Amino acid sequence: MLINDNYLKLQAGYLFPEIARRVTEYGRSNPAQAARVIRCGIGDVTEPLPDAARRAMHAAIDELGAHSSFVGYGPPFGHETVRHTIAECDFRSRGLEVEDDEIFLSDGSKGDCGAILDIFAAGRNRMAVPDPVYPVYVDTNVMVGNAGAARTGGGYEGLLYLPGTPENGFIPEPPATERADVVYLCFPNNPTGAAIDRPALERWVHWARAAEAVILYDAAYEAYVTDPTLPRSIYEIPGARECAIEFRSFSKNGGFTGVRCGFTVCPKSLKGRTSDGRPQPLHPLWARRWSTKSNGVSYPVQRGAEALYTPEGRAQVAALVELYLGNAGVLRRGVEARGLRAWGGVNAPYIWVQCPEGLDSWGVFDRLLHDAQVVVTPGAGFGACGEGFFRISAFNSPSNVEEVVKRLGAFDGSSI
Amino acid sequence: MLINDNYLKLQAGYLFPEIARRVTEYGRSNPAQAARVIRCGIGDVTEPLPDAARRAMHAAIDELGAHSSFVGYGPPFGHETVRHTIAECDFRSRGLEVEDDEIFLSDGSKGDCGAILDIFAAGRNRMAVPDPVYPVYVDTNVMVGNAGAARTGGGYEGLLYLPGTPENGFIPEPPATERADVVYLCFPNNPTGAAIDRPALERWVHWARAAEAVILYDAAYEAYVTDPTLPRSIYEIPGARECAIEFRSFSKNGGFTGVRCGFTVCPKSLKGRTSDGRPQPLHPLWARRWSTKSNGVSYPVQRGAEALYTPEGRAQVAALVELYLGNAGVLRRGVEARGLRAWGGVNAPYIWVQCPEGLDSWGVFDRLLHDAQVVVTPGAGFGACGEGFFRISAFNSPSNVEEVVKRLGAFDGSSI
Repeated sequence: MLINDNYLKLQAGYLFPEIARRVTEYGRSNPAQAARVIRCGIGDVTEPLPDAARRAMHAAIDELGAHSSFVGYGPPFGHETVRHTIAECDFRSRGLEVEDDEIFLSDGSKGDCGAILDIFAAGRNRMAVPDPVYPVYVDTNVMVGNAGAARTGGGYEGLLYLPGTPENGFIPEPPATERADVVYLCFPNNPTGAAIDRPALERWVHWARAAEAVILYDAAYEAYVTDPTLPRSIYEIPGARECAIEFRSFSKNGGFTGVRCGFTVCPKSLKGRTSDGRPQPLHPLWARRWSTKSNGVSYPVQRGAEALYTPEGRAQVAALVELYLGNAGVLRRGVEARGLRAWGGVNAPYIWVQCPEGLDSWGVFDRLLHDAQVVVTPGAGFGACGEGFFRISAFNSPSNVEEVVKRLGAFDGSSI
Repeated sequence: MLINDNYLKLQAGYLFPEIARRVTEYGRSNPAQAARVIRCGIGDVTEPLPDAARRAMHAAIDELGAHSSFVGYGPPFGHETVRHTIAECDFRSRGLEVEDDEIFLSDGSKGDCGAILDIFAAGRNRMAVPDPVYPVYVDTNVMVGNAGAARTGGGYEGLLYLPGTPENGFIPEPPATERADVVYLCFPNNPTGAAIDRPALERWVHWARAAEAVILYDAAYEAYVTDPTLPRSIYEIPGARECAIEFRSFSKNGGFTGVRCGFTVCPKSLKGRTSDGRPQPLHPLWARRWSTKSNGVSYPVQRGAEALYTPEGRAQVAALVELYLGNAGVLRRGVEARGLRAWGGVNAPYIWVQCPEGLDSWGVFDRLLHDAQVVVTPGAGFGACGEGFFRISAFNSPSNVEEVVKRLGAFDGSSI
């Protein structure tokens, strides 16, 4: 049996397990300090699951306990009422055209980002990714053969990297001359916290339609957009239904990182091409992918996600988002008060910080872990353009965030 | 953007959606009869979720409601205590060598059967599948390019089909001359209800090791084995750790079809080969697949699955299995009393019945739906060798099963 050799191209471990390994090792070697560690690394939420979701999940479990209300296999795309609620509340009520059956429920955006590659021709599309970038976009493409060998300077041959820099505010423009067939965009951005404005997103949609490319739009952090002029969905841009798939998650609004639920929007008007050049809608392919490879999301989880759209659920989600955005502001002001240059933390739960002179991003990671017991994410883990930066996550308790700022302030490092 | 053309090779809809469509259409056209419909088609459980699982899930949800016990992202392979419990109770306590970190938790076996193909070289292994067969094995291979065009007589070019017939008791022998790199086996079998004995499984393990092939062993129905001489895991056979991955599910023992949880066992001693012929363990590839494409199974679901291994959980699972096996016996005797030839229903929850003269399997399906309001699964949906047979599922309430037998008895069809 031949294995998938593409896996052997992958460099090192996936970023977050590597961070976890270093933190665990630090704790073992420094047991007295271990309890002081504050994790602002992985971007995992810390606040309790909203009461509305918990109550709905409890009720769903009770349903499973009685013959008359037992629920077995559900539709592979999610229960109809859940898809309807999402399409109605997240899109139609905001004037966006999305039908119920264009919503595909999943156990989270991370899985969706990988799964979507199932319906594209492996090894035959040019994939474009921002740099820095959520590593899952890159690694899943390497795994299916959409990338070549690892390059010595970081990254992989064959992928088109779209540099995010202080100069462009970490919002890359569409490629001027290079071909790309599929482009990943994520706004508000992980890891840089950049939020795209309407004109910039319009340029992307315009480019994609002209290039017959597909935009994979990761809107996992859309709830953090407070500026009403900024788009929260790519479908706010005319023409996006012909060129974009959107990923949404309940992890960062409803605190579902452990509960696991998200969804994709795959418009019926979105088409690719067959090898012999015929246009082919993606919706039936994506539907077939789900009906063949899944039995849908856990029933109590679906009910929990649905409950986030009730009046109580919305209020509880809004409170969570407000809390984390408050943290983000505190962190951004905190690092800036230390004389560091920072982005994000506004309309986004991540703060992207330039490393002080003389330290690279894993250097900052190790120093902050060892000397301040604060876990951040080294920018280099997000790509070559991430070197020289680190990410601080606002997903923490306000008291921990205050403590992080204090430790940064008291930090005796020579350069940080 | 080029789509994955392999999807266009897929024939018709996935079997169960097609059944659901016909049942829905029947209900619409015959509203007076709709309430009488008894579903013995899809193999979905009907009894309430065990109390032990519900209590554990309730407790887990309460944990998520407090800061001190909140759980966010879990390990992508499942929480350590859950993996330990599974390895200990399902394997080590039965004398089988399986380590905790050889267990990979998932949201169900259907997903695992598709996902496992990620780590094999697409289009370069010869895949062997029984016929009749669970359609997911075939369709997922078509989707990744491991099969050629659909054949007019059913099936796809490029796959090696292993016929199951009344002559071999629906237990195919290893191929004598044909090459195969990956073989799917499912015992107790879906759809035929055949249970493999130790000598036959030993022949498969022996063959696979000699052929350097991998056996994908679907043991989703292992809880239904009551004969102590029959293997419940392929790892009962010496040498299987060098040639087999096992799929397990909580759907049919713990009634988790709506809750969604299963796992794979990937032994560290199992190896494939790289394109240039080097041996490569599969375990790190499978681990990388999970850590890159998933954030693990919903926390309350994991706790629910774990609770099935408590003394109360085991007793409740045993009662469920006993109930469904009782149904299976009633159904098998019922169809045999009608003069029909049948297999399974012993050590398995499915009864596999030969169609009466003059009716093919969709013909039986339509006749039983229209005239008796009983939903069965047409054998043709499971492959060319399934034509001439139909499957009855024992997953139903005992009263419904009695009613099904009565309706079969009173059935006025000329030949059934």
